[in-house]
Amino acid sequence: MAKLKIGIIGIGNMGSSHARYLINNEVPGAELTAVCDTNPERLRWAKEALSDRLQTYDNDNEFFASSGIEAVIIATPHYDHSPLAIKAFKQGLHVMSEKPAGVYTKQVREMNEAAKASGKVFGIMYNQRTNPLYQKLRDLVQSGELGEIKRTNWIITNWYRPQSYYNSGGWRATWEGEGGGVLLNQDPHQLDLWQWTCGMMPKRVRAFCGFGKYHDIEVEDDVTAYVEYENGATGVFVTSTGDAPGTNRYEISADKGKAVIENGKLTFYRLRQSEREFNREYQGGFGEPECWKIDVPIVGKATDHKGITTNWVNAIQNGTALLAPGEEGIKGLEISNAMHLSAWTDDWVDLPINEDLYYSKLQERIKASTFQKKHTGNRTLNVEGTH
Amino acid sequence: MAKLKIGIIGIGNMGSSHARYLINNEVPGAELTAVCDTNPERLRWAKEALSDRLQTYDNDNEFFASSGIEAVIIATPHYDHSPLAIKAFKQGLHVMSEKPAGVYTKQVREMNEAAKASGKVFGIMYNQRTNPLYQKLRDLVQSGELGEIKRTNWIITNWYRPQSYYNSGGWRATWEGEGGGVLLNQDPHQLDLWQWTCGMMPKRVRAFCGFGKYHDIEVEDDVTAYVEYENGATGVFVTSTGDAPGTNRYEISADKGKAVIENGKLTFYRLRQSEREFNREYQGGFGEPECWKIDVPIVGKATDHKGITTNWVNAIQNGTALLAPGEEGIKGLEISNAMHLSAWTDDWVDLPINEDLYYSKLQERIKASTFQKKHTGNRTLNVEGTH
Repeated sequence: MAKLKIGIIGIGNMGSSHARYLINNEVPGAELTAVCDTNPERLRWAKEALSDRLQTYDNDNEFFASSGIEAVIIATPHYDHSPLAIKAFKQGLHVMSEKPAGVYTKQVREMNEAAKASGKVFGIMYNQRTNPLYQKLRDLVQSGELGEIKRTNWIITNWYRPQSYYNSGGWRATWEGEGGGVLLNQDPHQLDLWQWTCGMMPKRVRAFCGFGKYHDIEVEDDVTAYVEYENGATGVFVTSTGDAPGTNRYEISADKGKAVIENGKLTFYRLRQSEREFNREYQGGFGEPECWKIDVPIVGKATDHKGITTNWVNAIQNGTALLAPGEEGIKGLEISNAMHLSAWTDDWVDLPINEDLYYSKLQERIKASTFQKKHTGNRTLNVEGTH
Repeated sequence: MAKLKIGIIGIGNMGSSHARYLINNEVPGAELTAVCDTNPERLRWAKEALSDRLQTYDNDNEFFASSGIEAVIIATPHYDHSPLAIKAFKQGLHVMSEKPAGVYTKQVREMNEAAKASGKVFGIMYNQRTNPLYQKLRDLVQSGELGEIKRTNWIITNWYRPQSYYNSGGWRATWEGEGGGVLLNQDPHQLDLWQWTCGMMPKRVRAFCGFGKYHDIEVEDDVTAYVEYENGATGVFVTSTGDAPGTNRYEISADKGKAVIENGKLTFYRLRQSEREFNREYQGGFGEPECWKIDVPIVGKATDHKGITTNWVNAIQNGTALLAPGEEGIKGLEISNAMHLSAWTDDWVDLPINEDLYYSKLQERIKASTFQKKHTGNRTLNVEGTH
C-alpha cells in the first residue's frame, strides 16, 4: 500500500513534535510530505531540521489545494482548529485536530457537521486516551465493577507555568488568541478523560475562576468547579497553573467502592457488598461493608501523540476504530465553556449550554481586552514531557 | 490538692465514654462524682456499670445547684450545649462542652459572653487538636515554612453511616434534634481543624448540600463547599456519610510548597524558592522551582478526649493554657452555618453570617418538618474508635 501523505499545519510547539516522529518514519504507513505555517522562520526550520524535501506553504488555501496531501494534522492556535478542519474536509482530506477541538461549541458543532458530510476520518489529539491508567479506570466503570457513580473529584493542579511561559507567545493566554487559559490550553485532556472515564457528562455546573490570579494574563489561571450529574452524582474539578508543586489526583466514589488515580497508580477499594444494599440491611449502627484495597495492574504504556496518530492512520487505511473520534472533542469543550460561563455570570449553567450566549460573552471579552503583553516575540518551546 | 469534682450531663454515647476514663482515674487530679440524664435507664446504667457511689440526677437545675460539682462536661444533644453551659457558668462551674459548641452562632455567642462574665475555665471537646499530625501542619503554617496559603482542599468523606445509625436515636439527623447532619455531628472536628491549622477563616462560602441524599433523614448527608479567604486563597471541603470507603485527605498549597495529610502521614513538598519569586524571575518558559518531598516526623500520639479533659483540668488547677478554648467553638460552627445557609438560599454567604437570618431559616425547617423516623427507640452505641 502507498504511504499516506500527511501534512501539518502549524509548526509551533506541538506541530514540530508531530513532525519529528513522522519524519523519522515512526508511524507505519504514513509520511510527512508538506507543512504550512504563516511564520517563514518556522518553514525554514522545517526544511533545515526535518527534511529539505518537505514542501512548505505559507497559506492554508494553497496548502490544502496543491500539496497533494491526503490527510492533515492541525496544530495551529485554538481558534483556527475548527475553521481549518472545515476547509480540509471540503478538500476531501482526513483530519486530525490538536486539542481543544475549538474555542466555543458553536464553532465545533459546525466542524462536526462538516466532518460527517465529508465521510472522512476525523480524529482529535486526545493522546491521554492512550494511557492504560485511564483506560483501566474507564474499564472499571463500564464493566460495572465500580457500580453507580456517586462522586468524582479531580485535583489537577500540576500544570505549573511561570510568567515567562505566557510571555513566550503573543496569542497565549488572551481571549482573542486562545479563548481562555488553563481550561483551554492545559486541561482539555483532563476534561475529556473526566467525561470519558465516567461515561457521563455533568448536567449543570457552578464554577469559580481566578482571571490572571497568579500571572500577568487576562484569562483564567485558577479554577474550582462543582458539577452535578443526571444520576444525582456530584463532582469537583480543581485546576491551576499557579500551584507548585501541583497535584494530580482523580477519585471516583461509587456504589461498589472507590477508585483513585494518583502518582501513576490506580487503586481500587472494592466493596464486597454494594453500599446501597449494606445501608438498607445492616442493623449494627456503626459499621461499613468489607473493603479490599486492590492495586490494579496496568498493562502497557501510553503510546501518546504517536499512538493517536498511528491509530488515525490505521483508521484511514484499514478502517480500525478511532480511540479518540474528533466528534467527541465537543464534550470536554462544553464542560470548559460551561465553567467559563458560570464564572462570568456568577450563576449555575445547565448543559447543553446556551451556545449563542457563550459566544457573545466571549466576544465581549475580546472587545473589552486592553491587555498588552510584555512578550519577547514568539518563541517555540520544547514541549517534550509537558503535554 | 483536693481532686476536682466533675459532673457529666448527658450519659449517652459520648458522655459514657468520658465517664469511663474519669471513673478509672485516668485524668490526674479529677474525679467523677455526679451524672445527669433525663433517661432513667442511663442513670441506672451509670450506677451499675460505673460506680454505685455516683450521684445521679434527672434534671439539670438540681444537678448544677446541689451535686457539689465544680466542673461539668456537657455531652447532651447539640441544642442543649449552649443553654446548659450558660446555666453552669451562672452557677460558677467550669465547663467542657462537647462539640459542636451549639447549633447556631447566635446561641454560641451568648454562651461565650456568659463564659467571659463568669471567669471560669471554658473548654470544648476538640479532641482532634491533640493529634500531632494536625499540630505539625499548624506549625508549618504558623512558622512560615509553607508561606502564604493559596488553596486548601479537604476531602473528608470517611464518616460512613448506615441507616441503622440514624434509626438509633430519635433526635439524630433531624432539624429539631441536631440542627443538621454531617456538618453538625461528624464534621465539627474537621471544620475546626481546617480554620485552626490555616489560621484563617473563609470570608465567603458557596455550598451545595444533599439533604437525605443517601439516607432516610431530613438533614444533609452530603456536602461540597467552595470558600474564599481574605488573602485571595480558595478552598474546597467535601464531606459525606454516604461514601464507602471514604477518603480523608487534606491538602494545603502555598507559596513555599504543599502539605498533604493522608493515611496518618504528613508530607511536605518544600520549594527551595518561593513560587511567587520564581514566577517573576525564571525566564525558561517551562519549569518550576526545585522541590523536596519531605516525610515530616510526627512525634507523640493523639491524647484524644482524655487529653482534652486533662488539659482542661490542668487549666482549672494550674492555669495551663487551653489547647481548645471554648470560645473558639464558634469558628467551625460559623463555617457550618454558612454552608447550610448557602445551600438553603442557593447563593453566596459572606462571613460573619447573618445570625438572625440563619436562625429564622432553621426555625422554618423545624416547623416544616414532617419527618417521622422509623427508629427502634434510643440506643446507646459504642463510639470507641469512631469520633
